[in-house]
Amino acid sequence: MTATSPIAIFDSGVGGLTVARAVNRVLPDEEIIYLGDTARVPYGTKSPATVERFASECVEFLLHFRPKFVLVACNTASATALEALEEIVDVPLEGVLAPGARAAVEASAGRRIGVIGTRATVASGAYERALTSLAADVDVVSRACPLFVPLVEEGRTSGPVVTAIAQEYLAPLLEHGVEALILGCTHYPVLKPVLAEVAGVGVTLVDSAETTARAAHEALAARGELRPPGDTPPPRFFVTDVIDEFERVGRIIWPELPGQIERVEIGRASLR
Amino acid sequence: MTATSPIAIFDSGVGGLTVARAVNRVLPDEEIIYLGDTARVPYGTKSPATVERFASECVEFLLHFRPKFVLVACNTASATALEALEEIVDVPLEGVLAPGARAAVEASAGRRIGVIGTRATVASGAYERALTSLAADVDVVSRACPLFVPLVEEGRTSGPVVTAIAQEYLAPLLEHGVEALILGCTHYPVLKPVLAEVAGVGVTLVDSAETTARAAHEALAARGELRPPGDTPPPRFFVTDVIDEFERVGRIIWPELPGQIERVEIGRASLR
Repeated sequence: MTATSPIAIFDSGVGGLTVARAVNRVLPDEEIIYLGDTARVPYGTKSPATVERFASECVEFLLHFRPKFVLVACNTASATALEALEEIVDVPLEGVLAPGARAAVEASAGRRIGVIGTRATVASGAYERALTSLAADVDVVSRACPLFVPLVEEGRTSGPVVTAIAQEYLAPLLEHGVEALILGCTHYPVLKPVLAEVAGVGVTLVDSAETTARAAHEALAARGELRPPGDTPPPRFFVTDVIDEFERVGRIIWPELPGQIERVEIGRASLR
Repeated sequence: MTATSPIAIFDSGVGGLTVARAVNRVLPDEEIIYLGDTARVPYGTKSPATVERFASECVEFLLHFRPKFVLVACNTASATALEALEEIVDVPLEGVLAPGARAAVEASAGRRIGVIGTRATVASGAYERALTSLAADVDVVSRACPLFVPLVEEGRTSGPVVTAIAQEYLAPLLEHGVEALILGCTHYPVLKPVLAEVAGVGVTLVDSAETTARAAHEALAARGELRPPGDTPPPRFFVTDVIDEFERVGRIIWPELPGQIERVEIGRASLR
């Protein structure tokens, strides 16, 4: 591992491009290797054991590129599989939960925090644990928002339908008076304009993609492993199913989407 | 294989319960063995090659029960993998496409037919091919409706949001003057009341679950393989991920959901 080694980003699918995009903006000199497990996406409705198995297979693939840092962009995998992944990785590994939790605590003087995510992330209680470990007096309300991912993947990121659904999902959190709202799913930053409108100016939206990219920056700077400017190879994106669909949704999330998309077989290769 | 052998039903997940329920109603004396590949659901956004691999592994599992008939409840697998499945099965195999296509042609004097389904089913063009082979002059308009499955799985089967989305999805089909509308995805029969309201009385809704159950009845009767009344074992439901989530959505689709739900590992076992 050297300063010119890449940053590896793993996600269950295409949503992690919000994290890749943020890393690319915060750390433009770094090389990015991304893997989206699009053949088995979504993880958010599956059991912890299944998520752990799929995530481990994916991270093993990324280790072939000898990364200096591994980012788990998938909230579900961050919530349920991070310890298992730490066992197979010998470089720093960061999920999206801890950076988001830290930012939320900083943004809420009264410690009232809302969390929205997939059913699996919310059921895991991982954000509550992360928040409570940072501030024992924190008051957390969580809500699963299963329609947000299909809405984003359809390109429906504004308009009356998405606003009506957002109002319904956020109502109990807003009634509770949350001061910060953690967008606990990779897709949700795409809905930020609608969520900001529905939540109102009194609520700070915590975008885990942004906070995770900044955490990677800090960690690499502290280790003296920031890549020097110049000659950065373009990002490489690997997917476990067809490229077209990844590119279609990818451009909703990251319109300019630089670099190359390649297909790999993961479940099959590593299980045989 | 004898008349007391079970009917095997395969689906990518929980949606095939609309087919299992219809089979249970049309053929109450038959034993049902159901497999939902809930660890890898959905198939509707994945490539034909991936769907073919997953579906073959699942049907191989069902063959252990020595069924007399195999029903492929998943529209995506019916559209993209039926030929591959026919190669590994030596008993009659029926998908949901052909029965739905026949019913739609019968219901449309002017041969104007609408098809709604997942992105993969619509992209495959399989319904167009099935309809054209039945009536060369058929006029088909198709539309992918990716939000319907998550809406059903959230239990949101009526109300202003689902009505607004249905109006938007069906608008081009209704403008085209379709006389029959094929509900080309296992989940959609749950939305029949909303779809009927939006489509209006001039449009016949073709429920593939119903038509497939009737096709199974005809095929078994023709072969003299209907199970005699009495002593029918309760249905057995197998899933590849946690039981809870299958049961939660299962009861939205089939409130009384009889029988037992068991978990099996498919991808891992057959690939090792």
